[in-house]
Amino acid sequence: MVALQRYFPVLGWGRNYNRSNFSNDLLAAAIVTIMLVPQSLAYALLAGLPPEMGLYASIMPIVLYAIFGTSRSLAVGPVAVVSLMTAAAVGKIAETGSADYIAAALTLAFLSGLFLMLMGVFRLGFLANFLSHPVIAGFITASGIIIATSQLKHILAIDVQGHTLVGQIVSIVTNIGEIHWLTLVMGISTTAFLFWARKGLTKALLRLGLSAKIAATVGKTGPVLMVIVTIFLTWLLDLGTKGVSLVGAVPQGLPPLSLPSFDSDVWSGLVGSAVLISVIGFVESVSVAQTLAAKKRQRIDPDQELIGLGAANVGASFTGGFPVTGGFSRSVVNFDAGADTPAAGAYAAIGLAFTSLFLTPLIYYLPKATLAATIIVAVTSLIDFSILKRAWIYAKADFIAVAITIVVTLGFGVEFGVTAGLLLSILIHLYKTSRPHFAIVGQVPGSEHFRNVLRHDVITDPAVLGIRVDESLFFANARFLEDTIYDEARKMHELKHVVLLCSAVNSIDMSALESLEAINLRLNDIGIKLHLSEVKGPVMDRLKRCDFLEHLTGDVFLSQHQAMAALGSGTSAT
Amino acid sequence: MVALQRYFPVLGWGRNYNRSNFSNDLLAAAIVTIMLVPQSLAYALLAGLPPEMGLYASIMPIVLYAIFGTSRSLAVGPVAVVSLMTAAAVGKIAETGSADYIAAALTLAFLSGLFLMLMGVFRLGFLANFLSHPVIAGFITASGIIIATSQLKHILAIDVQGHTLVGQIVSIVTNIGEIHWLTLVMGISTTAFLFWARKGLTKALLRLGLSAKIAATVGKTGPVLMVIVTIFLTWLLDLGTKGVSLVGAVPQGLPPLSLPSFDSDVWSGLVGSAVLISVIGFVESVSVAQTLAAKKRQRIDPDQELIGLGAANVGASFTGGFPVTGGFSRSVVNFDAGADTPAAGAYAAIGLAFTSLFLTPLIYYLPKATLAATIIVAVTSLIDFSILKRAWIYAKADFIAVAITIVVTLGFGVEFGVTAGLLLSILIHLYKTSRPHFAIVGQVPGSEHFRNVLRHDVITDPAVLGIRVDESLFFANARFLEDTIYDEARKMHELKHVVLLCSAVNSIDMSALESLEAINLRLNDIGIKLHLSEVKGPVMDRLKRCDFLEHLTGDVFLSQHQAMAALGSGTSAT
Repeated sequence: MVALQRYFPVLGWGRNYNRSNFSNDLLAAAIVTIMLVPQSLAYALLAGLPPEMGLYASIMPIVLYAIFGTSRSLAVGPVAVVSLMTAAAVGKIAETGSADYIAAALTLAFLSGLFLMLMGVFRLGFLANFLSHPVIAGFITASGIIIATSQLKHILAIDVQGHTLVGQIVSIVTNIGEIHWLTLVMGISTTAFLFWARKGLTKALLRLGLSAKIAATVGKTGPVLMVIVTIFLTWLLDLGTKGVSLVGAVPQGLPPLSLPSFDSDVWSGLVGSAVLISVIGFVESVSVAQTLAAKKRQRIDPDQELIGLGAANVGASFTGGFPVTGGFSRSVVNFDAGADTPAAGAYAAIGLAFTSLFLTPLIYYLPKATLAATIIVAVTSLIDFSILKRAWIYAKADFIAVAITIVVTLGFGVEFGVTAGLLLSILIHLYKTSRPHFAIVGQVPGSEHFRNVLRHDVITDPAVLGIRVDESLFFANARFLEDTIYDEARKMHELKHVVLLCSAVNSIDMSALESLEAINLRLNDIGIKLHLSEVKGPVMDRLKRCDFLEHLTGDVFLSQHQAMAALGSGTSAT
Repeated sequence: MVALQRYFPVLGWGRNYNRSNFSNDLLAAAIVTIMLVPQSLAYALLAGLPPEMGLYASIMPIVLYAIFGTSRSLAVGPVAVVSLMTAAAVGKIAETGSADYIAAALTLAFLSGLFLMLMGVFRLGFLANFLSHPVIAGFITASGIIIATSQLKHILAIDVQGHTLVGQIVSIVTNIGEIHWLTLVMGISTTAFLFWARKGLTKALLRLGLSAKIAATVGKTGPVLMVIVTIFLTWLLDLGTKGVSLVGAVPQGLPPLSLPSFDSDVWSGLVGSAVLISVIGFVESVSVAQTLAAKKRQRIDPDQELIGLGAANVGASFTGGFPVTGGFSRSVVNFDAGADTPAAGAYAAIGLAFTSLFLTPLIYYLPKATLAATIIVAVTSLIDFSILKRAWIYAKADFIAVAITIVVTLGFGVEFGVTAGLLLSILIHLYKTSRPHFAIVGQVPGSEHFRNVLRHDVITDPAVLGIRVDESLFFANARFLEDTIYDEARKMHELKHVVLLCSAVNSIDMSALESLEAINLRLNDIGIKLHLSEVKGPVMDRLKRCDFLEHLTGDVFLSQHQAMAALGSGTSAT
């Protein structure tokens, strides 16, 4: 039962579900549903897909996540960055609007779901740690810019091509003459309203005398209000016949059963993109889930999250959706609205299914410019160049990583951007850990303490080299250890003893053990003995399993002080 | 001049070159030349190339390494594992024996030379550290087996196909009926002689009254003696007409000028293999160079070694050679024979050029079975399954890495093997460093020391959590830090203060800083304050650059003792 519960967290919270949970979840679900309708439609538009696919992508995935996911508050569905990445990936192998394009989007969801689930089963969630925070921040900022620019096509009513900033700007400049002015007026006014509504609506409601909580909640309904108002205006003024581009006919009904493609060409064209989308989606989702869980002293299991998100994506691929993940703004709304359990997600799914069944005819009159305005306003909160300044001040290595990620993403598109960021992060990581901090140590006069000779006035002995490595020894730094010891030993002509101070060494792996054996042997060739001091218990136990200690030319001392007392020549120098 | 000398180490040792160096180098060169002739021919055969290419691959590369390399003793040329990898790589895009096959081998040398030089210029030598020792040992053992098996075709005189053990065994079993018995007798007797000669020859010479040094040196000429004897016997008994396969006509002359292919299809077919060959060749070569340098208190510069080996490979591609690297056995012979400087290599090159100019007609009668025997005896020293046993005893993680590398290499070939080993090594590395060692600490009664609660009887306080992380904080372990603190905080219901003991934290990167900010914020949400203690000077300096300390809900204490004195509730428990 416990084992089963690990893979089906629903079995845990489901058993204790009570009336209070139900009413809290239902309220949260109602608010989230209202928020999700315009978002779902807009992100489908961003991904280059029919609007109903956005609704479908929010229904089955949310239910599957409720069963398999571990966060009590995460709301799963289409999100901006993943939708942009979907457009970039699918656009490579099929033409926008074609049946192949839709099939490719389903397949992309299937592949990324599969990949997420595999990562979860093999407990590889830790791999996501290797996308450093600044790199993610840079990537998201650049993606936000590309998304906002891409939506200008709906505001200006001109053709904008490309998935890179440069490509889009060229496209806009080329086609600027074809602007449809009525659409532009609508686009600008809706965008302006939404920007104002983000803070102004709540304030206005407060001034009308509503309670703070209600004002904050209703304040988030700005996008839905605007959808309703523009639909009404468009119908009233018959704007469709005046050249304003509308969403048009959206089929009524529950999500259809769909199948991903199993064509090997499609798979090989999408598998790389699926991996990138999975990684980005996972990193985003986990960080939201973790933030919200910590607030209620709950915990999430990143490996089980992979399975939850994987199931959601596989579900999307079989029910007419496209790649999904846990979204930031909707999860926060869900949390703030008081959702107790993932059941809130399931209720929201019911609300969306209802919308999909009965309300889609109303969407006919929705101008695309309204959806574009929704997207633009939503993604501006993603754009945050302050990361560049903060990184510059704090650490130049981090600055370089962010700057390269932003430039590559803007110049070459999201896939190159995230790949560059990932490789850069891992390369920096490998570089750092391959050079651990080490110190030549000497005795603090009149004490038994040994400290770094570069920072303290200490006593050293020309015949004894005391060296402390501030890191566990393993293959990544084994060669550095050899290099360092040989280099230092070469400099000291009277050297007879090297004492490796192991106070910070928590483990020694086999590569490092072989390096120690090599150091022992090579130092012996030139008449120098190798000693160890302050070896921790577990490390000593392991060393005793092999014959290293038998071959060690020197001794193992309990403390550096004892080592110096036994080996010192007496001809010390400060 | 100093800058120039870094890239041209020859300028360093060349200026002080004297008569004693000259005579030492000349003697070493003579011995190495005698050893290199059969080896070079044999490894060309192993790579599926004409025998003269083995000689060519030993001439120009050795000279270029003498100019650019930093080891005083390394002997560069074709080696077993790299030759096998060459055969596997080139065999994928061209048919053995064709002109395309030769062109592909030249191109492979060019590409791996280019890659090595790029790695050197960008100082990426540290990347080679990420092939762990056990993985390399496993890979070399498995390669040795594949090489030995592949040579059975020359001993049995049957057709053996494939670059995997399974493929080769199937091939041998299928064609076993076509054995040429005379060749088999020759093959077995030469193999047996060489096995005996490895130790027996020196002993026999000692019994004849030769000095230990001369006996040891002459003892290494076993392969050349056997080449001479079998050439003579084959000529005398006219074995060629009796079905024994001979090396045949080898052109006389200096290495020809050749050009790598610049066809993009050839490049894309070989670039992956070139990277793998470079990495394996570099790792092997550096470890030999380092062993020998340490014995004379000399040092090598891994990044400059990349440039030296890169130049050698590019040189090979323009003078009719194939991929080369520093060989273990020949370098040891060079060292033992007393080579003082890389000039010994240049003199050996002259010896080989002389061979190539005047002695190749003698090679006509050399049976291929003799060369195969040379290879088999040479590679048996590579095969060492004891690594499996040692790894099993020492650490299971290392055992798994070795076992997988061996199985993949034997079952799927060298390229898959080394790729699997590399990915596995990095994956294990990432996994390990993403979970640093941490300890909940308590006060040792009657002292100011704080120790791990799991290992010592210490005093803790239900309102204060003291946690020590034994690693610098950076993006790879930032999330782990968050998880750990939230997990521990969740368990303690009376918790009011978390004190992060930073005595082992040498640096905090921007990702970890953001994690600390998040921890600070989230703990604050649930009424818990975050404090730091024993923060090192450089870390503190960096923290002061940003506004973290202003937002910190708690304080920064000089010691954990002071922190506990200030925060402790008095209701302590042991």
